Amino acid sequence: MSTGSPLLAELIDALRCLPGVGAKTAQRMAFHLLERDRAGARRLAERLGTAVERIGNCTRCRTFSEEPVCVLCASPTRESQLLCVVETPVDQLAIEQATGYRGRYFVLLGRLSPLDGLGPRELGLDLLAARLGEGEVQELIIATNPTVEGEATAHLVAQLAAAAGIRATRLAHGVPLGGELEFIDRGTLAHAFGSRQLLADT
Amino acid sequence: MSTGSPLLAELIDALRCLPGVGAKTAQRMAFHLLERDRAGARRLAERLGTAVERIGNCTRCRTFSEEPVCVLCASPTRESQLLCVVETPVDQLAIEQATGYRGRYFVLLGRLSPLDGLGPRELGLDLLAARLGEGEVQELIIATNPTVEGEATAHLVAQLAAAAGIRATRLAHGVPLGGELEFIDRGTLAHAFGSRQLLADT
Repeated sequence: MSTGSPLLAELIDALRCLPGVGAKTAQRMAFHLLERDRAGARRLAERLGTAVERIGNCTRCRTFSEEPVCVLCASPTRESQLLCVVETPVDQLAIEQATGYRGRYFVLLGRLSPLDGLGPRELGLDLLAARLGEGEVQELIIATNPTVEGEATAHLVAQLAAAAGIRATRLAHGVPLGGELEFIDRGTLAHAFGSRQLLADT
Repeated sequence: MSTGSPLLAELIDALRCLPGVGAKTAQRMAFHLLERDRAGARRLAERLGTAVERIGNCTRCRTFSEEPVCVLCASPTRESQLLCVVETPVDQLAIEQATGYRGRYFVLLGRLSPLDGLGPRELGLDLLAARLGEGEVQELIIATNPTVEGEATAHLVAQLAAAAGIRATRLAHGVPLGGELEFIDRGTLAHAFGSRQLLADT
């Protein structure tokens, strides 16, 4: 890399920490910022620094938060009898953006994976059990991913709910809206077929 | 956007200044950095800040440089009788990476575009004329892009060379290596056909 500027070469290298950004894209990004958007670059540098320094995890639900208790946990308008368990903050965000869910969340920050050293303790299941023991939660919505590890995690979480005498529910699996049967994987199709539901007006 | 963390929302927003990064990608990047690569994010924030503060333009060739004179201009080993004119620092980098060129560069930082307020002055053509007047340059390689504006720019630069009595050359146009005639645009093919060259051993 000869750009005539060692600082530029360092910037291009640093941009590669972004997911999906290789050498060429990093180059394009660096040149774009320097040529056309120095204000944006300055703002990004500041916010990135601040975010890394100050964002930790909520002590109540474990999602990302710069306060000891996150905005959603602190909100007085969310329904405390509903608790939704997700693997990551991204999953939480996906549910927030797609659904009208107004309850609370608990973020596992991972899924059960003993080989990676992720057990019940790492997933904060003691914290979850304590939360369920508070007596406020009436339904535990388990929204882990439909993978082998996600299912194992769901199983463990469901046991906690059962121990606390709380109703546990799981996201419905089946044919995605707009999907065509022809292109759906066999497992999903078999599951959807087996879980077929009675039409309301028949 | 409800992520439970306003700082996170600000970071996601700031990431959108990167070219080709929309809302979804910015989200994915922010979560990736916070979950898996805080060291990389910290480094990126620092280098981005430093680059924006300290990288300006070389007073001799106008490319990006944190010093008054860039590394390539300052290098005693580059050949001063060759000068290659490019539109942007990215083009300069492309030539550095692809060719064995060992001469000097002059970066226009744009192309002739009166509607955008880019005239000879903005392209630093006075600086280029002065450079050609120094008497060191023997060949001016014009490597502007083969677009209408790039061609107009090339024409103007060629006039400067002619005025200084310096030989001007232009990158060859034609069928790209590995390209298939079937898929080449008509203009390129017509040009390549018209500029056909005698085979060396016939």
